[in-house]
Amino acid sequence: MTTPPHVLDRADPLAGFRERFVIDGELVAYLDGNSLGRLPLATADRLSEFVREEWGGRLIRGWQESWIELPVTVGDELGAAVLGAAPGQTVMADSTSVNIYKLLHAASGLRPDRTEILIDATNFPTDRYLVESVADSRGMTVRWLEPDLVDNVTVDLLSSGLSERTAIVVLSQVDYRSGTLLDLPTLTARIHAAGAIVIWDLCHSAGVVPIDLDRAAVDFAVGCTYKYLNSGPGAPAFLYVAERHLAMSGQPITGWWSAADLFAMSDTYQVAPSIRRMLSGTPPVAAILAVQEGVRLVAEAGVGAIRRKSEALTAYALELLDEAELEIVTPRDPARRGSHVTVRHPDARRICLEMTQRGVLPDFREPDLIRLGLSPLSTSFAETAAGLAVLIEFAGARR
Amino acid sequence: MTTPPHVLDRADPLAGFRERFVIDGELVAYLDGNSLGRLPLATADRLSEFVREEWGGRLIRGWQESWIELPVTVGDELGAAVLGAAPGQTVMADSTSVNIYKLLHAASGLRPDRTEILIDATNFPTDRYLVESVADSRGMTVRWLEPDLVDNVTVDLLSSGLSERTAIVVLSQVDYRSGTLLDLPTLTARIHAAGAIVIWDLCHSAGVVPIDLDRAAVDFAVGCTYKYLNSGPGAPAFLYVAERHLAMSGQPITGWWSAADLFAMSDTYQVAPSIRRMLSGTPPVAAILAVQEGVRLVAEAGVGAIRRKSEALTAYALELLDEAELEIVTPRDPARRGSHVTVRHPDARRICLEMTQRGVLPDFREPDLIRLGLSPLSTSFAETAAGLAVLIEFAGARR
Repeated sequence: MTTPPHVLDRADPLAGFRERFVIDGELVAYLDGNSLGRLPLATADRLSEFVREEWGGRLIRGWQESWIELPVTVGDELGAAVLGAAPGQTVMADSTSVNIYKLLHAASGLRPDRTEILIDATNFPTDRYLVESVADSRGMTVRWLEPDLVDNVTVDLLSSGLSERTAIVVLSQVDYRSGTLLDLPTLTARIHAAGAIVIWDLCHSAGVVPIDLDRAAVDFAVGCTYKYLNSGPGAPAFLYVAERHLAMSGQPITGWWSAADLFAMSDTYQVAPSIRRMLSGTPPVAAILAVQEGVRLVAEAGVGAIRRKSEALTAYALELLDEAELEIVTPRDPARRGSHVTVRHPDARRICLEMTQRGVLPDFREPDLIRLGLSPLSTSFAETAAGLAVLIEFAGARR
Repeated sequence: MTTPPHVLDRADPLAGFRERFVIDGELVAYLDGNSLGRLPLATADRLSEFVREEWGGRLIRGWQESWIELPVTVGDELGAAVLGAAPGQTVMADSTSVNIYKLLHAASGLRPDRTEILIDATNFPTDRYLVESVADSRGMTVRWLEPDLVDNVTVDLLSSGLSERTAIVVLSQVDYRSGTLLDLPTLTARIHAAGAIVIWDLCHSAGVVPIDLDRAAVDFAVGCTYKYLNSGPGAPAFLYVAERHLAMSGQPITGWWSAADLFAMSDTYQVAPSIRRMLSGTPPVAAILAVQEGVRLVAEAGVGAIRRKSEALTAYALELLDEAELEIVTPRDPARRGSHVTVRHPDARRICLEMTQRGVLPDFREPDLIRLGLSPLSTSFAETAAGLAVLIEFAGARR
């Protein structure tokens, strides 16, 4: 017998954070906070204020007064609260895709005598496509790992692909389909033992899984902010470069914001010595402020507490799905999963449509996966139960 | 004897547009709308509504309901109202810098047997830096034109640099320092006669100068939207690819948004047949809506009428500056200048600081230039007169 959800909500130390978000009362359940996080109330206020007071009121003066520094100051806040990164290594810039591109070039520059980029075939498409593009332009070869969907990249599988030819390994800490959480410290150490560089994609883990990039001696990382960092559709991405690599990390999109002196307008390009070297063009000011609000909510709650609630929410969802005898493709071990749970069903597309019509928003992933994102700061146990009840109804309980 | 400014304002058919912007009453004059445009009232409302209703209310459904198409639909609107571009050739994406990078690669792919990129040494730093980076990575050579600041790139100067080795020419339609407006159709034809490809940077002309990319058979163009398109600090850029080049235009930042089917998550990358191939990562939705509002204001006024007011404003400014016998580095011929006027003065830095303290915002450009941007939709003749009076006071009249 499952515990009633309201009992779980009453015991939840983070329950109050739900009131800090816009919750649409017409929705029965939003189970897609891992795709687009809900709107924090503070963000709505901050954006209005920024537009009226700062853009409208300070105009060009805003750049000198504070905007110029935002990519780095918000990067540092995110680094401290979310990534376990000391200052000066994280910056807000562009999209995850553009940042992966930059880091692939930077990483390959650190291993000029090696020829292979290793990536798993189950990785998110943008990671795979960009690895292929950069490998092609630099005369490198892509080596594909072929993991099981649920187990994803294990140390054994990784080891089978590593060699003295491996320059770079690209891995996602949480798999976007199964929700599998990889062992970042162990895999990083294994990659380093082989003399290679790792780029971690943290899109599905940032803000919901404790990450300690500095302690694990990660080389490079990227991630988006519109999932568990609740920063809005198309919010800017972050990028991390370990301090020991900074001076040697070159990226090819050498726009004026990567130059040592932004306003010198000098004849010759001189790259910034700091993490600003990873910037390219003018940063989106309002959008970075939305990230700052999202990060501050996470910092206030603490990633440790968020992680505990995430484990409880996913465990609860698995219990309900097991009772209905649905097929799960997410690891049972809480230490091996992120914050979404995925059901495999031959009618997944139809079920997702029907759920949506009933006010429950899941995420369909081709060809047969129903992804249920449980975003701890804004998702209650009651909401989870209500949403899964509708899923179970349409998926055919006890089939 | 100069006409009194209020007489000019009374006769100005676009005078009413000033009320459509937030005008900070504490400022005497904002003469930097060519660096960061003022805030349109409609944009403030649209952004608030978007954040609350669409992000907060529609959540993930927003992508399918409309957001996915925004880079192209707003690109088409901008193309029609501002660029003289038929649909399907313009897209909102990334920053100007990232887009220049993409287009340099696309252009060099169209001329694989040629080895030189031609650019003027007075071009904006980001253009120059990116040309150097891409030339380096593709084994090409940069050839520099050395124009006079005021004349900028003439047909003769351009011709002196073109040869059968020239693959690409990068030019800015309006020079960011002098305000010189280049003859886009004639220069484009000359470049094509030499068998080369042109990339036009329209940052200082988009929204204030009539542009007819299709008629001039321009190959590629980019530009920002935070100047005369009033779309906010760090607003996304636009990118234009002539339809005849689309199928052959490859760019290396092949993120998932450039793929033929965004949600197929397919094993192999297949590039979109449309202009979407120039996208990379998830687009910034709110920021693109701000562009849409800015473009609609320009469309409503019409670039022809905006240009007429721009010519009148800059002529008026030149008249006042001439009376004060200040040195001007902007062409006298209205057909040869954009919408800013630039004064050269040995104490330019000090003067700009003093002007700012008196509530007049100009733009200082190293080492000795004072740039005065006159944004026709939001700048009145009275404001121009008030601002220049302060400049003239500090610059030393009749020295």
